[in-house]
Amino acid sequence: MENIIKSKDNPVIKLYQRLSSSKKERLEYGLFVLEGMRIVEDAVREHTDIRYLIFTESASAKADQFQVDLRNTKVVVISNELGNRIASTEKTQGIFAVCAIPGRSSMKLSENGKYVVLYGLQDPGNVGMIIRTADAFGADGIILSGSCDLYSPKVIRSTMGSVFRTNILIENDTEKLFGLLSQGGIHTSAAVIDSDAQNIRECSFEGGHAVFIGNEGNGLPHDIAMRCDRRVIIPMKSSINSLNAAMAAGIIMWELCGR
Amino acid sequence: MENIIKSKDNPVIKLYQRLSSSKKERLEYGLFVLEGMRIVEDAVREHTDIRYLIFTESASAKADQFQVDLRNTKVVVISNELGNRIASTEKTQGIFAVCAIPGRSSMKLSENGKYVVLYGLQDPGNVGMIIRTADAFGADGIILSGSCDLYSPKVIRSTMGSVFRTNILIENDTEKLFGLLSQGGIHTSAAVIDSDAQNIRECSFEGGHAVFIGNEGNGLPHDIAMRCDRRVIIPMKSSINSLNAAMAAGIIMWELCGR
Repeated sequence: MENIIKSKDNPVIKLYQRLSSSKKERLEYGLFVLEGMRIVEDAVREHTDIRYLIFTESASAKADQFQVDLRNTKVVVISNELGNRIASTEKTQGIFAVCAIPGRSSMKLSENGKYVVLYGLQDPGNVGMIIRTADAFGADGIILSGSCDLYSPKVIRSTMGSVFRTNILIENDTEKLFGLLSQGGIHTSAAVIDSDAQNIRECSFEGGHAVFIGNEGNGLPHDIAMRCDRRVIIPMKSSINSLNAAMAAGIIMWELCGR
Repeated sequence: MENIIKSKDNPVIKLYQRLSSSKKERLEYGLFVLEGMRIVEDAVREHTDIRYLIFTESASAKADQFQVDLRNTKVVVISNELGNRIASTEKTQGIFAVCAIPGRSSMKLSENGKYVVLYGLQDPGNVGMIIRTADAFGADGIILSGSCDLYSPKVIRSTMGSVFRTNILIENDTEKLFGLLSQGGIHTSAAVIDSDAQNIRECSFEGGHAVFIGNEGNGLPHDIAMRCDRRVIIPMKSSINSLNAAMAAGIIMWELCGR
């Protein structure tokens, strides 16, 4: 076992904190952080490139459960006090990791693939829950465009490990995004709340298909909705309030992937 | 306009804070709190019994927008500093209310009604999102049994006003709950993750029907699941992880209420 790190100025501690709080630092280092037994286990199981496994003294007995290649992964033990300092949860399990961000700039689209495009989603909890649901329903991929940072701790935590099992592309350039879908022969639908859109219960999703879902407050921009092959709507009985964006995406994936 | 309240020891301020933080106090007083322009508007629109409307100095110009009966509702103005003190959000809009908890101990079940029973749900965000979704899909009622407090500020906030438009019963006694459903001629399904349960896509929900949804971590207790008329499952392609409870409830209500 390593010496126990006790100083808040230790480079690993400082790195973890920078990555935890700043998107800019995550991009610069190409690294992101994990916290918690289960999600670190998921990362190990899915062969994520883990640079540091960090345990508090109290949690260090569990280190042996993680079968990692020690040539690539450095295991460090920190004081419980430091664990509480870097934790984002109130009662931390004392298990943390620093991982390399995998390449997310290309995605091979399959002929009959079912995709969801998150266009301008800003709530990390929503994005995480959508990725978790995509994993459960077997969507072929999620494309983030102009949405919040996939590697923020809150998104990662909300995915409950599905971030490691789901095919995810980040493409912030709208022209490239439509070009990619078009080249792949993927049909497109825009999820809207206009009453003249097609009822999603009655839509066919044969062949390759991507459904665009817009921002929590504003929905999809009009030009993006019109650029899609068709507009679809989740019919609602209460007109006063719309569905939460993650719930809407869940219903869409249920219809898209399940038939 | 009233005098501006500046003291943190003012009885209205102390009442608001007690109701905001303690289920026990909410039960004792029979009151709960609201925060934010939109949800207070919803409460007024749905004729909720509002005892106090509270505005910060900065927000007090908006007081006239709320058409309340001033014989029942007292309007008070507080300093901006006190507004920040009692707010549960970081950037408060400075609009608060104290409302009476309506009776939730009985519910008239309709012959063809579609109901969801939340049995032991503990996450306020989940319960709120389920109520919001029930409103959107037109469920005939939500029954809370052994779940978290409906009137906690986080549940109320997550419903986005749907708490005022949705038929909600609180029945923590399991015997009474099954008795009520049985007397109403309501069929029951238990949402489970056992592979021999019936695929929810293929289920009929004709007539009156209630679907039981269990706790986030543990699901439904076995005896409750067996006591329902049948067991249903949302088929999933990824076996590693289950759906979020609110998402599962949303898919169930989509199938239950929409066909």
